[in-house]
Amino acid sequence: MKPLEDYLVVDFSQFLSGPSAGLRLADLGARVIKIERPETGDICRHLYTSNVIMNGESSVFHAINRNKESFTADLKNEADRQNVWELVKKADVVMHNYRPGVMERLGFDYESVKVVNPNVVYGEISGYGNVGPWKDKPGQDLLLQSLTGLTWLTGNAGGPVPMGLSIIDMLAGTHLAQGILACLVRRTIKNEGALIQVSMLESAYDLQFEAVTTYYYDGKLPERSEKNNAHAYLGAPYGVYKTGNGYMALAMGSIPQLGQLLQCDALLAYTDVGQAFHQRDEIKAILAAHLQTGTTESWLEVLLAADIWCAEVLSWDVLMQQEGFKALNMIQEVSMNDGYSYCTTRCPIRIDGEIFTSEKGSPALGENTEAILQEFKA
Amino acid sequence: MKPLEDYLVVDFSQFLSGPSAGLRLADLGARVIKIERPETGDICRHLYTSNVIMNGESSVFHAINRNKESFTADLKNEADRQNVWELVKKADVVMHNYRPGVMERLGFDYESVKVVNPNVVYGEISGYGNVGPWKDKPGQDLLLQSLTGLTWLTGNAGGPVPMGLSIIDMLAGTHLAQGILACLVRRTIKNEGALIQVSMLESAYDLQFEAVTTYYYDGKLPERSEKNNAHAYLGAPYGVYKTGNGYMALAMGSIPQLGQLLQCDALLAYTDVGQAFHQRDEIKAILAAHLQTGTTESWLEVLLAADIWCAEVLSWDVLMQQEGFKALNMIQEVSMNDGYSYCTTRCPIRIDGEIFTSEKGSPALGENTEAILQEFKA
Repeated sequence: MKPLEDYLVVDFSQFLSGPSAGLRLADLGARVIKIERPETGDICRHLYTSNVIMNGESSVFHAINRNKESFTADLKNEADRQNVWELVKKADVVMHNYRPGVMERLGFDYESVKVVNPNVVYGEISGYGNVGPWKDKPGQDLLLQSLTGLTWLTGNAGGPVPMGLSIIDMLAGTHLAQGILACLVRRTIKNEGALIQVSMLESAYDLQFEAVTTYYYDGKLPERSEKNNAHAYLGAPYGVYKTGNGYMALAMGSIPQLGQLLQCDALLAYTDVGQAFHQRDEIKAILAAHLQTGTTESWLEVLLAADIWCAEVLSWDVLMQQEGFKALNMIQEVSMNDGYSYCTTRCPIRIDGEIFTSEKGSPALGENTEAILQEFKA
Repeated sequence: MKPLEDYLVVDFSQFLSGPSAGLRLADLGARVIKIERPETGDICRHLYTSNVIMNGESSVFHAINRNKESFTADLKNEADRQNVWELVKKADVVMHNYRPGVMERLGFDYESVKVVNPNVVYGEISGYGNVGPWKDKPGQDLLLQSLTGLTWLTGNAGGPVPMGLSIIDMLAGTHLAQGILACLVRRTIKNEGALIQVSMLESAYDLQFEAVTTYYYDGKLPERSEKNNAHAYLGAPYGVYKTGNGYMALAMGSIPQLGQLLQCDALLAYTDVGQAFHQRDEIKAILAAHLQTGTTESWLEVLLAADIWCAEVLSWDVLMQQEGFKALNMIQEVSMNDGYSYCTTRCPIRIDGEIFTSEKGSPALGENTEAILQEFKA
């Protein structure tokens, strides 16, 4: 039995940050009902990546909204509002990711919901928090990466390099899920609700907690290596290198030992541990040139035998052929109500030895409205 | 009151993944006791980044282990083991991030702990899961990024580019915290414990859930743009651009509209929405050349007035001067027992309008051993 079975989440959020929190709660067993506007629904339904359309809607939407229900309601229509109130009254969790003030205008904000559901656990994600001069700015992943210093950590020295995924959306979602879960723990003991607030700005900053703690101490901005950077704060060999037939990653290892193992005499001179950091550019240049003279397999064979932390760089097609990957059953096939099925990931958390899957795909817009109306009618 | 007050977490983990889960539980109010080996302790104490030493230990350690206690025990010494059992018996949560099999040999694995503490919520993080041919490989962030396809999403077309932070460690930590919290919810209702297992491999794969869902559908590996890539699956203008005096990010916007607003006639021709994706390389090249002809401020002024999603690219020093950042109070000062104080981040989750801070810094190795022994003696 999944840990959140019998929990009801009423989710007004759209795009990625809020829905990714809802996804995790659904993964863990909660019933998640998306409240969507009639006709258009969650804007993510038509927010295409690579222009890929699956069953008429965006692949991103299908990925984030598997295992959820859809209830359509026009929040400005009084009859629809009454229906939504019936859901909200019985919800364990209510959540949204509107900009500050919008939910207050719609009337389903925490203070209003608490009147009819005093123990509700209410979660919200904003872009920049609910205070300060930035609070009304649009919360968008790339903009948050750019504003929070994150782009100076990835890639080689030179210009800013963003991370190529909606990492801030996802982190804000995980933080919201953590806060909601912690307050559900408290609620079961103390019978009290909570308001949980997360912002993409705070999540983006928290992601950098190690590096900014160092920055507070020495006031030095991150300096990436000229080439083969994988972490601005770590010395050679930390990085990804081209080989004669591909790429490999090297995490740790003493430089002279690497010199011996790889038969690269130029590395033998770097006997001082401090050099691995302070002379990392020249060490990495030597390594980069040398590693191109052999195959990934030949280098890994020597290094792995000496317990050096290294790995081949794989793409998905090769990864998915590996027995080490297949053994984890990370892929599940889910089906929509109309029979359309697709493959996607599953919850990455195992509980009591079980992986949690659900054969339910994403909901068509409003497909559960009628059934839910019957079930929840006043 | 923090939601996890009165919860006791006994944490055998070290480095980053497990301790980052412990940090979040501590942030949310739990008492977290680190079990560390005498003399050396958590290896992270001396895992320096940028060779920065704060009060004799690594800045990374101080960042991850604020607000925790330290209890030293030699898990191969019988008297020490007995002391640890007293803690484990009373723990709500026990966690570790040893490789599969190690905790079984040490005797504090889930099956053993359950004998004396039947309702324990027990969490563990491995590198590659507990099954399959990869299970004994060392779980290290860069290697996991490299093996799971993640390095083909960031940076411009060409070689692999890792994300410049220990992102997989952190995600595995957040997933473990989510699983632990969900099972604490279930425990308070059903009075039953749980084993939660997370692996860095599964967390790294889950991070890519959107993109791999698209891959399952069309079988196409990610293709990054030649220049200014910020997301392999999105069209122009999505990216970071050099301006006459800095850098700016552009997230969304119709290409002809950008052409008008920026007075860049070459963009006016791209009137077909599909061109933004299929001809993104040439569009980005035009934009990149044009944006260098003016200042960041001048472009932002025009674009923001038209509600185009864009932002300046900031570094930490500039970010920290912004009122929008200062208003969030993301920085807290914490103090170690010996009086050494340092600045670091705080929990990114607000509950009932409050930010959660704690003035307690990281523990010196074993500083709480005696007091804990007195408190927990059989």
